[in-house]
Parts: sequence; C-alpha cells; structure tokens
Amino acid sequence: MTVPSKIKILRTVQQVRQWRAESFLNDQSVGFVPTMGALHAGHCSLISQSLEENDRTIVSIFVNPSQFAPHEDLDNYPRTLERDLEILESQFVGQQVDAVFVPKVSEMYPNGITLHVDQQKGAFVTVHGSSEQLEGVKRPQFFRGVATVVTKLFNIVQPTRAYFGQKDAQQCVVIKNLVRDLIIPTQVRILPTMREPNGLAMSSRNQYLSREMKDRSAIIYQSLQKGALHYKEGQQQHQKQAVDAAEIRNIIRESISQDPEMEIEYIATSHPDSLEDLDFVEPGIGAVVSCAVKVPKENSSEKARLIDNVILN
Amino acid sequence: MTVPSKIKILRTVQQVRQWRAESFLNDQSVGFVPTMGALHAGHCSLISQSLEENDRTIVSIFVNPSQFAPHEDLDNYPRTLERDLEILESQFVGQQVDAVFVPKVSEMYPNGITLHVDQQKGAFVTVHGSSEQLEGVKRPQFFRGVATVVTKLFNIVQPTRAYFGQKDAQQCVVIKNLVRDLIIPTQVRILPTMREPNGLAMSSRNQYLSREMKDRSAIIYQSLQKGALHYKEGQQQHQKQAVDAAEIRNIIRESISQDPEMEIEYIATSHPDSLEDLDFVEPGIGAVVSCAVKVPKENSSEKARLIDNVILN
Repeated sequence: MTVPSKIKILRTVQQVRQWRAESFLNDQSVGFVPTMGALHAGHCSLISQSLEENDRTIVSIFVNPSQFAPHEDLDNYPRTLERDLEILESQFVGQQVDAVFVPKVSEMYPNGITLHVDQQKGAFVTVHGSSEQLEGVKRPQFFRGVATVVTKLFNIVQPTRAYFGQKDAQQCVVIKNLVRDLIIPTQVRILPTMREPNGLAMSSRNQYLSREMKDRSAIIYQSLQKGALHYKEGQQQHQKQAVDAAEIRNIIRESISQDPEMEIEYIATSHPDSLEDLDFVEPGIGAVVSCAVKVPKENSSEKARLIDNVILN
Repeated sequence: MTVPSKIKILRTVQQVRQWRAESFLNDQSVGFVPTMGALHAGHCSLISQSLEENDRTIVSIFVNPSQFAPHEDLDNYPRTLERDLEILESQFVGQQVDAVFVPKVSEMYPNGITLHVDQQKGAFVTVHGSSEQLEGVKRPQFFRGVATVVTKLFNIVQPTRAYFGQKDAQQCVVIKNLVRDLIIPTQVRILPTMREPNGLAMSSRNQYLSREMKDRSAIIYQSLQKGALHYKEGQQQHQKQAVDAAEIRNIIRESISQDPEMEIEYIATSHPDSLEDLDFVEPGIGAVVSCAVKVPKENSSEKARLIDNVILN
C-alpha cells in the first residue's frame, strides 16, 4: 500500500521561495532539516524537534557534490527518495512535515560544479580555523562543500531554525561559525546523536555494513565511553583538575584496536568551540572526543568510514 | 543649522532585523544601498533609484576592513559620517531614506578581523573566476573581502533589491555571480557611472586629488571614449565584424599617456560576464573596457588609484 502523499514536493528554488513567502506574511516560524536522504531515526529525531518548535517544517534531500572528492563515494552514496518520502509521510504523528525540497544539481549549482576544487568557478564559502583538522585532514574539500551548500540552502529556505545532529561534531562547529560570521538569520539547533540499541551511531553509511559488522562496530562508541569514564573518574579523584588528553585517547585506541578489523584513522580530543587539539581536558571547558574508523563493507573489498564522538564537560 | 534627523540610525544587527521584520509582515519591498560612506552624487543616484523602486530604502555606511590589504588606505579612507547623514536627510525630495545602518567592525566581524589574509579565521566568501584578474591582480584579497561583507550585509538587511554602480565594473560582475551562485534572494541592480561635468567618474577617492588633478584626470574617461569610438567605427566600416581588442587598448593607452602624471596600471578588454581577456570584441557579446590609473595625491608624495570603464555592446 502506498501512502497518499500530503507533503508538498518542491523541486525548484522558485517553488521554495513562494512557499516561504507565505510564512513571512503570516509571521510563521520555519524549521529546516537539511539532509542527503537515506533517512534514518537520526534524521527523524531532528524532524520531530523541528515540528515541535516551529509552525512549519521543511526537509531538504540533496546529495551535495561539492563536499565529495573525485575518489569518494558520490556516485554510490545511497539514494532512496521513494523510501525517504514514505518515511516523511508515515513517521510523524500529529503535526506533519509541510514540504520537502528535492532540487537537481543544476538548481543548486546554476554555474555547474566539478569535483576538482582547482577547477571550480563561482562563489564558495570557507570556514577557516575549524575546517582543516580532524575530518578535514583526509577530506580537505569537505567542509568548504558543506559550508557552501548550507549557505545556499539557508538562502533558499530562510529558516527560523535549522537542525543538525551532534554525530557530525565538526560539521556542527563549522556551521555554528558560519552562521555567526556571515550573520545568517537562522538559529542553529544541535541535537544528540541517535544510536542503534548496541550504541552504534546512526548513519546513512551504516547501510554499507553487514549485520555482523554493525554489531562489531558498536565497539567504537563503547570505547569512546571508556575514554569519557576515565575523564569522569580522573575529575572525581583529583578534585576537578585537568585530565591528560593523551591518556583518554590511548584508552580509546587500545579498546577499539581489540577488533583487528577496525582501522583507526584518528582519535582526537579537541576544544569544543575552536576544535584546537587539547593536551589536557579541563572541567568547565571540556572537549569533543571524536574518532574516524574504517570498517569492511559488505560484499566489497572497500571500507566504510564511520565517525562518532562524545562530549566531555 | 543642523538638519533635524528623521532617518533612523541603526547600529546593531538586531535593530536592522527588527526594522526588516516589519517589512516582511507588511509585504513591503526593501531597497538597499551598501556604501563605505563619503557619499557623493554617484551614491545619491543609486539611492534615488532605490526610493523609486521600493517601499522602503536602507543605506549602510561601513568601511570594510577585509577588503583592504595591510599596506592600503584603510586608516585614511575618508570617514565623513556627519556630512553623509546630512546628505541623506537633505538630498531627496518626496520619499525619504528610511534607515541607515552604521555598524561597528565588531558587529560585522563578531569573531574579529585582521588584514593579514593568512591569519584570518572564520567564514569567508570567495568568487572564483572573476576575482583574480584586473583589480584582483594588485589586490588579491579585495574581492574576497567585498564578497564576504556583501554576503553579511545581505544576510542582515535581506533586501528585495540592492544597488551598485557600474563604475566598479568587476565588483558588479563578482556580486552578480555571488548572488546567482549562493542563491541569495536579492535582485542586483547596476546603475550607470555618475560623472563630474568634465567626465571624471565620481569616487570617494577623488577627495584625495587637487582641483587641477581632478581636471587633468578627466583624460581617463576621454581616452576610454576614444577606444569606444574606434570600436563603433570599426563595426560600421566592416559590417559588424569583430574589432581587434589590442587596437582599442592601444588607442586608450596612447591617449592617457599624453599626460606624464598618469601612471597606467592596466587597460583591459574583458568579456562582460566572465571577465575573460578578449583578443577580439564581437558585436552581440561586447566587452567591458576598464582601466586603473594612478595619479598624484594633493599635498602628498603618494598616489591615488582611479578606476573607470566603458561598456561596448
């Protein structure tokens, strides 16, 4: 049985502008959840929060080329529009999503887009200082692509509030800086990471994993928690003194390494606002403890890259 | 006698947002004229047009640090706020400017700003492809600063239409690309260059010149016109064929060089949209013929840098 669609599907900037103009006239707040599709419970929790906090909610589904490098998984990134629309139409009781924006690449990049950064022409947004470390080391074009597409989407939707998941910790910092620095009239709302029952952070890229590998990958969050526990104990024992960040990282590294299939790319303890590398974690400042781990894909010699993080206060 | 002020002076982002919110509710169009102050007849013609085309008009006065290099004239750039406000209050008959936005640097750059590009942190906007040539050769940070501050101002004011002068030809192209690529909900209006009776393009930097040098600098526009005449004649004589761009540039160069005080930095014939260097100017495509010339400042061993351009169709 197909669910009869009640959600407006908007495909052009012009259609979104018209939809938005009504809200300006009626002084209605607009919540916005930007996604790349392949929706899961993580997205749904952002949408639920938006429905709760705003008069109207719009979701975008757009796999943004400019945040992928030529060798990355743009072509293979899961695209499940029909299923996504069914989820949007069936998952929310009471208030409904008002509209979903599903633009073509040419709508978002009217001047065209190549994945080769040195050949890209036109306007791009870079957030210096928080884009280069962690995820930015192996993916130098990533946050430029994210900041650029988020700026475009914000200019199209002009949301009152926009919703992002803490799972992408560095993305949250980049977008908070973007909104502050470019003085974008949108409130950024960051919501906690949604997890599988075993603790694995929900991600569209989990689709690449076998059931067994999903179970085994739970070790990532379990290990982050061990690091967090060490910090908590250290604080309790030493009357709220700073804790050596290297110790925290080592505990996590040793724990993840117990599974030889886990290929650790980085484990980092970073300042929550600047993302600067920390030598010590101090109470009152805290840290983002984040990691990227590569695990084997199902029926493939390739690896999937999973990220996760915990916040220390 | 001081003119009693009727124009709202807004100093914070919050104040502009409140002012703007009324217009959204009442479905009023908002015209925006961004300036660096030192207002002259060129600015006034932009404001008059905005008053004619919009329900409300707001002018900003902000000398933007990030478009200046450390060795440039940021500190000495003319700042004449009191006079500017008098002009805004007295120069327009009938409809009046509604508000003037005069922010502090900290309001526009909440994260601070240094003039040293390699030390700048936070979000910046670059328009690749149209920022590097012409003015961008000697001022590599210039259009990044312009695109960034214009993006900020547009996010604050959310104008229906924004007004720029053709005198800054490359700036017009950069801003049109910026608005197209970042999908900014603002219509860009470009108005013709206003000129002194002798033809000199109006510019806040003309204040640096003696009366004699203002007269002599008229040779810049006269020479551009000679180049334009050569193109027109070439088309008439050769049945609308392309005209050699080097010939146009040479005529201009020879003409300006007749005054030994004129130090030519560049003379260029560029594609009107891409700003690509042209070998031939073809009817139907046309060209921007632009130049930068340094002339002696009054009572100073320094030089003022004047730019001007004509459009060939």
